Amino acid sequence: MSGLFITFEGGEGAGKSTQARLLADHLRGLGLDVDLTREPGGTKGAEALRDFLLFGGHDLSPRAEVMAHFAARADHVDRRIAPALAAGKVVICDRFTDSTEAYQGHGLGNGDPALLDMIARLRALVPAVPDLTLVLRVPPAIAAARMAERASARTDRYEALDTAFHARVAAGFDAIARRDATRCRRIDASATMDAVQDDIRAVVAPYLKRADNA
Amino acid sequence: MSGLFITFEGGEGAGKSTQARLLADHLRGLGLDVDLTREPGGTKGAEALRDFLLFGGHDLSPRAEVMAHFAARADHVDRRIAPALAAGKVVICDRFTDSTEAYQGHGLGNGDPALLDMIARLRALVPAVPDLTLVLRVPPAIAAARMAERASARTDRYEALDTAFHARVAAGFDAIARRDATRCRRIDASATMDAVQDDIRAVVAPYLKRADNA
Repeated sequence: MSGLFITFEGGEGAGKSTQARLLADHLRGLGLDVDLTREPGGTKGAEALRDFLLFGGHDLSPRAEVMAHFAARADHVDRRIAPALAAGKVVICDRFTDSTEAYQGHGLGNGDPALLDMIARLRALVPAVPDLTLVLRVPPAIAAARMAERASARTDRYEALDTAFHARVAAGFDAIARRDATRCRRIDASATMDAVQDDIRAVVAPYLKRADNA
Repeated sequence: MSGLFITFEGGEGAGKSTQARLLADHLRGLGLDVDLTREPGGTKGAEALRDFLLFGGHDLSPRAEVMAHFAARADHVDRRIAPALAAGKVVICDRFTDSTEAYQGHGLGNGDPALLDMIARLRALVPAVPDLTLVLRVPPAIAAARMAERASARTDRYEALDTAFHARVAAGFDAIARRDATRCRRIDASATMDAVQDDIRAVVAPYLKRADNA
């Protein structure tokens, strides 16, 4: 695939969606063809699965929930991400496989090794690996304050979970960023929106040069 | 797992559901503790995914559809089949992994090797292998006549597909039965309901002795 695949990861209240949108605007301003998308979702079928998983009130076993997230991801990759990358676009995705590992593996599954092994096997079945993953980190107090400010019309099932869950998710993202240190860059997202965006642009810049030279 | 796991497989109009029910009644009459279930479905979450997949009108990529079926299966195995087998029950399931291989792999996927490979990898992640699989076979003309008689309140997405699709599914089941010849027994399901049930009971009988001796 000849495009550039950038994912945003992190817990609730880290500002991922805002920063992803700002980066997309910036890159479009540079004349790049950008596809800004999100997970779970990004295609009609995957958005329907998103509704099923986040707002359906269904209770699936941990392994079933992981597989359903990968089902949504398979549709998203097959129908949108892979074609966009093949067309040379910059794909910016708000959450991807790392979120499944952090939320389902570390958060809900409490780091169960069998579940993390299954996630690794499923990840290997989905042929799309980000060139760069920005892991946005904020201290729990700031995250909580931002989530409270958000006052979303509807709270999804993960937002509604307790502090210990979100602490496990954050620790999961840290573990992923350490393990995949070449792909992942940790961003301190506790500063102002503009300062965080400046940091992100500085990290992304070398990847654009690489894309130009390709 | 100490119970006995029997699956019924085959195309539309083969009489699987009827024969599975008759076998369950027979085994209960022998004093066995039988759990009769079906796929996709069998648990609350998996039945919700069944509705999503068969009646939701969603269009997923072939890989996504396969993964969603395995998500339903994971919930079914984790929450119902594995506990029932662990408790020593006879589990009779109307469709299981072979149906995913025949319908999604051979039928919808037209035997795409990459898709069949993915199905094999997913099957290895679900820790439940039938002790015996009864593959019910009927000539296409009889299958079509039975489907027409059924006049179901709602036709699911597979029933609605064309003759060529159902021929690929039937060929898929034949290939599975040849490959897994120890686990699978082909049953000629073109005879009367009672005659087919007699054949099935004759095939099942030795497995009950084995279960008694265990």
